[in-house]
Amino acid sequence: MTQNRRFILRRRPQGDPVPQDFELVEEDIPAPPPGGFTMRNVYCSLDPAQRGWMSDEESYMPPIPLGDAVRATCVGTVHASDNPDFPAGSWVMNLNAIEDYTAVEPGHFTAPVDVSLADSPSRFLSAMGAVGLTAYFGLTEVARPQKGETLCVSAAAGAVGSVVGQIGRIMGCRTIGIAGGPEKCRRLVEDYGYDVAIDYRGKDHDALRAELASAAPDGIDIVFENVGGQILEAEIFELAKKARIVLCGLISEYNAVEPHGLKNLWQVIVKEATLHGFLVMDYAPRFAEGGAQIAEWMQQGRMRIDEDVQHGIENSYDAFMRLFSGRNTGKLILKIG
Amino acid sequence: MTQNRRFILRRRPQGDPVPQDFELVEEDIPAPPPGGFTMRNVYCSLDPAQRGWMSDEESYMPPIPLGDAVRATCVGTVHASDNPDFPAGSWVMNLNAIEDYTAVEPGHFTAPVDVSLADSPSRFLSAMGAVGLTAYFGLTEVARPQKGETLCVSAAAGAVGSVVGQIGRIMGCRTIGIAGGPEKCRRLVEDYGYDVAIDYRGKDHDALRAELASAAPDGIDIVFENVGGQILEAEIFELAKKARIVLCGLISEYNAVEPHGLKNLWQVIVKEATLHGFLVMDYAPRFAEGGAQIAEWMQQGRMRIDEDVQHGIENSYDAFMRLFSGRNTGKLILKIG
Repeated sequence: MTQNRRFILRRRPQGDPVPQDFELVEEDIPAPPPGGFTMRNVYCSLDPAQRGWMSDEESYMPPIPLGDAVRATCVGTVHASDNPDFPAGSWVMNLNAIEDYTAVEPGHFTAPVDVSLADSPSRFLSAMGAVGLTAYFGLTEVARPQKGETLCVSAAAGAVGSVVGQIGRIMGCRTIGIAGGPEKCRRLVEDYGYDVAIDYRGKDHDALRAELASAAPDGIDIVFENVGGQILEAEIFELAKKARIVLCGLISEYNAVEPHGLKNLWQVIVKEATLHGFLVMDYAPRFAEGGAQIAEWMQQGRMRIDEDVQHGIENSYDAFMRLFSGRNTGKLILKIG
Repeated sequence: MTQNRRFILRRRPQGDPVPQDFELVEEDIPAPPPGGFTMRNVYCSLDPAQRGWMSDEESYMPPIPLGDAVRATCVGTVHASDNPDFPAGSWVMNLNAIEDYTAVEPGHFTAPVDVSLADSPSRFLSAMGAVGLTAYFGLTEVARPQKGETLCVSAAAGAVGSVVGQIGRIMGCRTIGIAGGPEKCRRLVEDYGYDVAIDYRGKDHDALRAELASAAPDGIDIVFENVGGQILEAEIFELAKKARIVLCGLISEYNAVEPHGLKNLWQVIVKEATLHGFLVMDYAPRFAEGGAQIAEWMQQGRMRIDEDVQHGIENSYDAFMRLFSGRNTGKLILKIG
């Protein structure tokens, strides 16, 4: 390959992204910057957060510039190097973009990857990457579950949610998972060990609340929220006193031109509940500790972390949209090399 | 007086309460229950929380039954007693109702009142009552301000808000108060010592955000929220990292048939902020400590707590509606005896 294919953001999506918001272009392979390297991206992480970076609203990162490739955490190999710490051929991880090659100036997000530790380098985007660490620190450090508490997880069959439920079970919680469709609900119980699976599809507000009330007769102590909107509202009505809500994601809102919002905030007062906005980056100094704990649980057979690996940079749009259609099963990853 | 006038809830209000939702009736004065007493209510507290009790939705207290008098915290005298701890003529406080006389079985909310400690018994409904204690514990225990932090208070000229701002200033915060109209904003600065007053009236979302951004160039560290709706949304856009929001009240939402809701919950994630639902009752074991601190600050001349005393049980509806029209200045109290 002598060209660099890049998945470019052409337009800021309004609501659901459409194919015309993007363009696949070919450019020359960039040279290593002084003191840096050119990276061949092999696995690209596809995450809901990318939808936020495509908009021009304030966030914890600047918007993706129009005309630039879509930002993504990538695992790949060093193609050409001007830095002896990152020799050609070695595996590395960085916040790059969906493109074959990236000119990398090593920084905060740049880390060598020891691929001998895992059965696939993609694991560094799932179990030993942001997914596993988000579940681990969000639950153990923010919500701080006590044995016997009831934990409710939305998007419970998703990349983060499936791990949260398993960690909650290991910590002695009763676990309720919310997902869409009977197949995902089957997996919640059979694959991820949830005590109760609730299928939100086809249920109005009252029906969803009734299922939650039945699953958590003493109320929900911890909500690990990945969805927002009407699911979060129903959960909030069924909280126990002094419940903790970890706000990890709001995927139902990201493509909404007019967000649904949270209409029962007064219930947060009534229940004396707490909502915690959570970004895993805050725990970066403790990532090694979290990764080691997850690796230990996986080795003990107490945890499974699924990946949904899609193939080909030419499929970037379709692969990304799997996040919002509920089709992905496990951590969504695009293999482009 | 030989009759007991009672302000009865006839209908659950839809949106703004209207006069037809209530009725003033006359009944016989009740006899003391065994082991209890009959109380002559003199001062009745008028609070936004009463609007919630008028609806049939879940809350931290059961709804006011239709046909019953509107629940209210009252200070008054013992009219007739079957309990030596509460002799006839003594002053007492209890959760009663807007009515001349209440048959009281002493319980969790029943407390003798030493009127010699204050210039008016009404102080036990303001400075030394729920208002002062809500401000004190909500700010000092939930938000835990650090010297030099920026505190933003909505309904800042209101009963609770005016006290929050003054405690914040005593604790070394830079204080921003939001209120409606130039007269209230003048009082924020001149009477309550706010560093900045923002008049929300006539301002759209962008204009309100611009004023907040200018008043808090490094972001808002603490929000003490009494209003909700669009004011809370604007504040959330201007938060500093790791901001704390004390959810004390949402008065803009209580009369809304369809609440505005919180549409920028994703900003809570981005800012890693925390929202704390807060009920002062949780701190009941420490009320004496809080009351003593407030009394000390008042004696030192470092704090003023205003009361808006309305007169006559026949004015109950008009007096209550002052809460929602922005007309009340200080803690709203109805004197009926």
